[in-house]
Amino acid sequence: MKDLKGAAIFGQSGGPTSVINSSAAGVFIEALKQELITEVYGAAHGIKGIIDEKFYDISKEDIKELELLKYTPSSALGSVRYKLKDVKDDDTDYKKLLEVFTKYNIRYFFYNGGNDSMDTCNKVSKYLKAANYDCNVIGVPKTIDNDLFGTDHCPGFASAAKYIATTLMELNLDAKVYNTGLVCIVEIMGRNAGWLTASAALANYKGLGVDLIYLPEVPFDVDKFVDDVKKVCDKNNNKAIVVVSEGIKNADGRYVGDFMASATDLFGHAQLGGVGAKLGDIIKERLGVKVRAIEFSLMQRCAAHIASKTDIEESFKAGQAAVRYAVKGQTDKMVAFERTYKNGKYVCKNKLLPLKQVANAEKTIPAEWINADGTGLTEDFVNYALPLIQGDAKAPLEDGLPRFAKLKKVLATKD
Amino acid sequence: MKDLKGAAIFGQSGGPTSVINSSAAGVFIEALKQELITEVYGAAHGIKGIIDEKFYDISKEDIKELELLKYTPSSALGSVRYKLKDVKDDDTDYKKLLEVFTKYNIRYFFYNGGNDSMDTCNKVSKYLKAANYDCNVIGVPKTIDNDLFGTDHCPGFASAAKYIATTLMELNLDAKVYNTGLVCIVEIMGRNAGWLTASAALANYKGLGVDLIYLPEVPFDVDKFVDDVKKVCDKNNNKAIVVVSEGIKNADGRYVGDFMASATDLFGHAQLGGVGAKLGDIIKERLGVKVRAIEFSLMQRCAAHIASKTDIEESFKAGQAAVRYAVKGQTDKMVAFERTYKNGKYVCKNKLLPLKQVANAEKTIPAEWINADGTGLTEDFVNYALPLIQGDAKAPLEDGLPRFAKLKKVLATKD
Repeated sequence: MKDLKGAAIFGQSGGPTSVINSSAAGVFIEALKQELITEVYGAAHGIKGIIDEKFYDISKEDIKELELLKYTPSSALGSVRYKLKDVKDDDTDYKKLLEVFTKYNIRYFFYNGGNDSMDTCNKVSKYLKAANYDCNVIGVPKTIDNDLFGTDHCPGFASAAKYIATTLMELNLDAKVYNTGLVCIVEIMGRNAGWLTASAALANYKGLGVDLIYLPEVPFDVDKFVDDVKKVCDKNNNKAIVVVSEGIKNADGRYVGDFMASATDLFGHAQLGGVGAKLGDIIKERLGVKVRAIEFSLMQRCAAHIASKTDIEESFKAGQAAVRYAVKGQTDKMVAFERTYKNGKYVCKNKLLPLKQVANAEKTIPAEWINADGTGLTEDFVNYALPLIQGDAKAPLEDGLPRFAKLKKVLATKD
Repeated sequence: MKDLKGAAIFGQSGGPTSVINSSAAGVFIEALKQELITEVYGAAHGIKGIIDEKFYDISKEDIKELELLKYTPSSALGSVRYKLKDVKDDDTDYKKLLEVFTKYNIRYFFYNGGNDSMDTCNKVSKYLKAANYDCNVIGVPKTIDNDLFGTDHCPGFASAAKYIATTLMELNLDAKVYNTGLVCIVEIMGRNAGWLTASAALANYKGLGVDLIYLPEVPFDVDKFVDDVKKVCDKNNNKAIVVVSEGIKNADGRYVGDFMASATDLFGHAQLGGVGAKLGDIIKERLGVKVRAIEFSLMQRCAAHIASKTDIEESFKAGQAAVRYAVKGQTDKMVAFERTYKNGKYVCKNKLLPLKQVANAEKTIPAEWINADGTGLTEDFVNYALPLIQGDAKAPLEDGLPRFAKLKKVLATKD
């Protein structure tokens, strides 16, 4: 293994989270320390910024601002949803990448994202290798969906879960305040895996939770749903709180939100809004109760003011580890988390997984963690998720409001 | 003035807030200390709980739990929206109230709420006086809407404003993360006064705010709105963040959300959802850009995890002051806030206002605080609101989640 000396570039990809910038801080602060790394670049809008030769010179940033990235939500460099074509079909982007890598002597490529981003990472890695261009490529995991294969959990999940559990506890108190009936239907993100929706079970564990939980892992039946809600209403003076994943599917695997959008005839009008609002309309019609549909929308992925300290720290370390692994010669891998317990206390360790393994797999909630009725989680889930949401950390306050990182974003140039 | 000795009862009314329970803590903790107060009761579901003779014996509660009320959102005793009839039309409720007051020797009545609750308070006060029943009646203000007459601001407003400003700062970072267009339309509570929607200006003050602010105070014109958004989109690569009050009205004074609900023909389908979603559809149709409509829904009034410490403390003191004023013989009044500055530092003092004055008035944003275009606030608003949102305080964490107050709620009895 020879020492690889050159520049490093880091990009952020896919939907932002509360802590994706903490991984950026980890990569940048560590890379700036490494002797083998001559320059540190941050790509504007992920892989697109590299192709377009638009990236920032991180050495120009104040270290204080890089530290503040830990507590700054969203993707400070800009994100992208851009799928590299198969190199056999079209190698234009790859050629441009190689040209830019060569021009800037980029020998370290770090990419932060979910499954799709790991696929991008893997494609770039393979292309560079085939072109005999030495470059160590390491993926840094990120997704509130928590659905990456081979890692105990994903950076970003715990902070979203903490937001969801805390907010549901608050909503529980609010929604039950009157002596009259109200069904609250809360829609939560997650197209294919129910981890985020499941985090409602943490609020249940604290005794201020929800009555029913609907996950994408369990085939959804509208009639059973109405029946489930009716049972809760009958028992609780027409009060119920229900969470549904945006990704619930019927027995045929079709998204409930999609097929209900076309069912304009059911109640004589077009169904707008998310699946929660649509189910709310059905409950209103069939049970004749007051309904409030709530979407946690973008807030669940950017509420940095209630991030998990554990998540922030693990995300930072994942970025730091990526750099350390890379300068030691590792490539074509993703940093992953392994859970151990030391004297009964949760400990998170880093490990590496081949990018190819992660790129096209998906981790859903184990069937045995879902209760028999398909509307709740077992305590295994609570035991899994609870250590991840521990600790509070957030941006310092200035005028009572968060002081987020402000980057100078000096464009890198090379003539 | 003679000393009035007897029981005290406290009730919560109207929409809950993050800090209404802090006022409850103030009333309870102070009342338990007062020698003239023989018993302390908390009414279940406000005035309805008194009429139904359903209230809790607060002396049975742990003081630790009463302290935790400061950080516990919603109305711990249960709330109510119940309008007392005019005594001339129907005095049934009043007779029942007098009967209960007499039976329990209730000589102090504290009621926590907004305009309507102050009206209730005033009616009860007048009836008891006419019946020659000695009882000191003091209202404690509460409303996220901040629209009570005669008080500098209202308990509950600042915590909601802090949630809104912080969340908009986070959304600003999130919504602008891709290199593609997105118009975010955020709908904020407030049917007649725009104070909460205006608090978006605090996020603007920190440089991470919104492009356009639409208040109920300014007549709303859909075409101007589309034009305003278009201008922002043209300048900012089709990116815009807009906040609208749920209470925006057209020039005729009709709620935009209401008249748009009946405009089913405009785009051939029924308009569901709030006014934000409806305006989002119009922007999508007319400007052809991607739109995301977001509602802060109940979260804006119950997000105790990001309450303003100043608000919590002032709410507590308002409750405490109500008791102190009452035992000194004051009655038929509401505790109000007066702002002063000491060495340039904001100081909030309590004062008293006649209930009658508060009951049927409403305070909207001064016209001179709204910019010429009607889409933003002047710095006068920022100077007004900023001191109110200072400081962080929240429930202690247990398992990484809030430990809210748990009351025993032992029903009071008298044979």
